[in-house]
Amino acid sequence: MKPLALTMGDPAGIGVELALAAWRQGGDVGAPFFLLADPDQVARLDRALGLSTPLEITTPAKAAAVFGHALPIVPLAARANVEPGRPDPAAAPAILESIERAVALTLEGAASAVVTLPIAKKTLYDAGFKHPGHTEFLGELARRADPAADPVMLIWSEALAVAPVTIHIPLSAVPAALTRARIEATARILDRDLRKRFGIERPRIAVAGLNPHAGEGGAMGREEIDMIAPAIKALRADGLDIRGPLPADTMFHAKARATYDVAMTMYHDQGLIPVKTLAFDEGVNVTLGLPFVRTSPDHGTAFDIAGQGIADVSSLMAALKLAARLAA
Amino acid sequence: MKPLALTMGDPAGIGVELALAAWRQGGDVGAPFFLLADPDQVARLDRALGLSTPLEITTPAKAAAVFGHALPIVPLAARANVEPGRPDPAAAPAILESIERAVALTLEGAASAVVTLPIAKKTLYDAGFKHPGHTEFLGELARRADPAADPVMLIWSEALAVAPVTIHIPLSAVPAALTRARIEATARILDRDLRKRFGIERPRIAVAGLNPHAGEGGAMGREEIDMIAPAIKALRADGLDIRGPLPADTMFHAKARATYDVAMTMYHDQGLIPVKTLAFDEGVNVTLGLPFVRTSPDHGTAFDIAGQGIADVSSLMAALKLAARLAA
Repeated sequence: MKPLALTMGDPAGIGVELALAAWRQGGDVGAPFFLLADPDQVARLDRALGLSTPLEITTPAKAAAVFGHALPIVPLAARANVEPGRPDPAAAPAILESIERAVALTLEGAASAVVTLPIAKKTLYDAGFKHPGHTEFLGELARRADPAADPVMLIWSEALAVAPVTIHIPLSAVPAALTRARIEATARILDRDLRKRFGIERPRIAVAGLNPHAGEGGAMGREEIDMIAPAIKALRADGLDIRGPLPADTMFHAKARATYDVAMTMYHDQGLIPVKTLAFDEGVNVTLGLPFVRTSPDHGTAFDIAGQGIADVSSLMAALKLAARLAA
Repeated sequence: MKPLALTMGDPAGIGVELALAAWRQGGDVGAPFFLLADPDQVARLDRALGLSTPLEITTPAKAAAVFGHALPIVPLAARANVEPGRPDPAAAPAILESIERAVALTLEGAASAVVTLPIAKKTLYDAGFKHPGHTEFLGELARRADPAADPVMLIWSEALAVAPVTIHIPLSAVPAALTRARIEATARILDRDLRKRFGIERPRIAVAGLNPHAGEGGAMGREEIDMIAPAIKALRADGLDIRGPLPADTMFHAKARATYDVAMTMYHDQGLIPVKTLAFDEGVNVTLGLPFVRTSPDHGTAFDIAGQGIADVSSLMAALKLAARLAA
C-alpha cells in the first residue's frame, strides 16, 4: 500500500508535533505516512521538544522504505519556519502548498490518501484564502480532476458517525440553505461512499428533522413535511435504506445508534454535539464525495498549547488508521 | 414532609401504568405521593395489567398515611376512562383538572411539589387547549398566584443539566426569539433556583453560542458578539458565575461538564441532544421560575406501547426523587 500523505497544517499549531508523536508511537496505523512540511521547521520543533526524532528528507516514492527508521519528510518549496503559538500569514503559501501537493500526489497514485492537520482560517484569510474551511478547499482541488466532486463532511467515531447537510454557516442561514436537492445529494454520496470506502453493504441512514420534536406534525415548523420527508421518500424509492425525519434529541442514545450506520443532520451542531459528547478525543473528520480519501483529526490548531508537547495524539492516530482502512 | 402531587397525564399513554409501577417499587423516593386521576380508569388498567395493586381513594391530607399500604388516589370530578393507546379528546377536561388541582394543592401547602405525567398536545388541542406544552401551561397557572412567575425548563440528570433559552418553536424562529433580555432573565432564574432549590452555593453556568464554533469571531454569525457576550458581561458584573459563549459542540464531553453546574443553551435541541444522548432514561424535566417545585419524567405519552406494562419507570422514579429533594 502506498504511504499516506500528511499535510503540515498551520505550523504555529499543534499539527507538526502530533505528526512527530504519531511516528514515534510506531507501526499500528496500517500504512506508512510522510509529512509534507518545511524540514527546518520540523527539525527545530523536534529539538525544542527535546525529542531527537529521526527525520529524513525524502520523496513520496521512497517514503515507505524510510518510514521504518525515520519520519519521512517531503519538503515544500515554500518556507514555514514560524514559532509555536504565533500564527503568521507568512506561512500561508507553505500551508496551501502542503494541501495541494497531498491532493496531487494522491490523485496521481503516489500516495494512498490525504490526511490533513488543522489549519486556522485566519492565517489563510489574511493571505487571501477564500474558502470557509478545509472541506470546501479540498472540494475545489478535487473538482480540477473530477467536476462531479461534491464534498460531504462525515464525522466518524466508533460510537457514532454523523454527516451534516449544512456546515459552516450561521444558524439563521440554515433554513434557507436546506433544500430538498441538497438533502438528496448528501444522502446519495453517503450511501455510495459508505459502500465503496467503508465496505458497508447496505448503509442504514437515519435522518434528523430540523425542528424540535421533528416539527411535531407541523406544530413547530414545516420543513419536515415540505422537504425532508419527500426527500426521504424519493431516496427510499431509489432503494436507499434511509428513514426519518426523526426527533434529533432522541436519536443519539446507545439503543437508537444501534439502528443505523450514519446520522444525517440538518446543521453543524445537531451532528457535532452528539459525536463530540460521545467521542471527544477519537473523532475523525472524513470528506466523502471526493475522488480520493481524505481524513483529518477532529480538532483545531490549539495555538494556546502548541510547542509544549502536551497535545493529545488520539484523534490523529484515529485519522491515520481510518485513512489506511478506507484507502485499502 | 407533605406528599407529592402526581398528575395522571394522558390516560391513553403510559403515565398511569408508570404511577402503578413507581408505587410498587416502594419506598426509596424520599416522599409519599398521591395520584390525581379517575379511580375507575386506574383500577381497570391495573386489572388489565394483572397487577392487583392495592388502590385507595383518599384525600391529600390522608395520602401519606395511605401510601404505606396502597397507592393513594385523589379522585377528579371529570372522568377519563379511555383505552390505552387510543387518545381521546373526551379525556381533556380530566387531564387539565389533574394539573390544575396539583398546582392548587401545592400552592396551598397540601402537597409539597407537583410531578406531572406526560400529556399529548393533540388530545388537548382538539379540546381547545392553547399552550405549546406543560411548561407554558404551568407558567399560566403559577402567574395566577405570582405575577412574576416565569417558567424556565431545566432538563436535569446526574451527568448533565441543561436549560434552553428558547424551547418549543421552529428552528427558523430561534434567532428572532433570542433577546438579550430573555438570556439575562433565564440566567437569573437559573442562578436563583439552583441556589434556592438545589442548594448549590454559587451555581456555575456555561452558556452556549448560537452558531457553529460560537460564530468564530463573527465569521459565522454575530449573535455571540451582539447579544450573548454582552448579556454574560452584565450578569458577571452582577456577581453571577457565568461564562461563554462557548462552541456548543465542545462543551458537553466529560471534562467540559466537570467545569459547570448547568449549561444554558440557545435552543431546544442544542441542550436536549446532549442530555438525552448521555442520560436517555434518567432525565428529569424540572420547571424553574415558579412559586412551587415541578418535575416530570423526560419522555412522552408513548401511545404505541401503552397498556402493555413494558414502559421504563426510571425517568418517573428520578422525577419523584428529585421533586422530594427539591421540595425538602
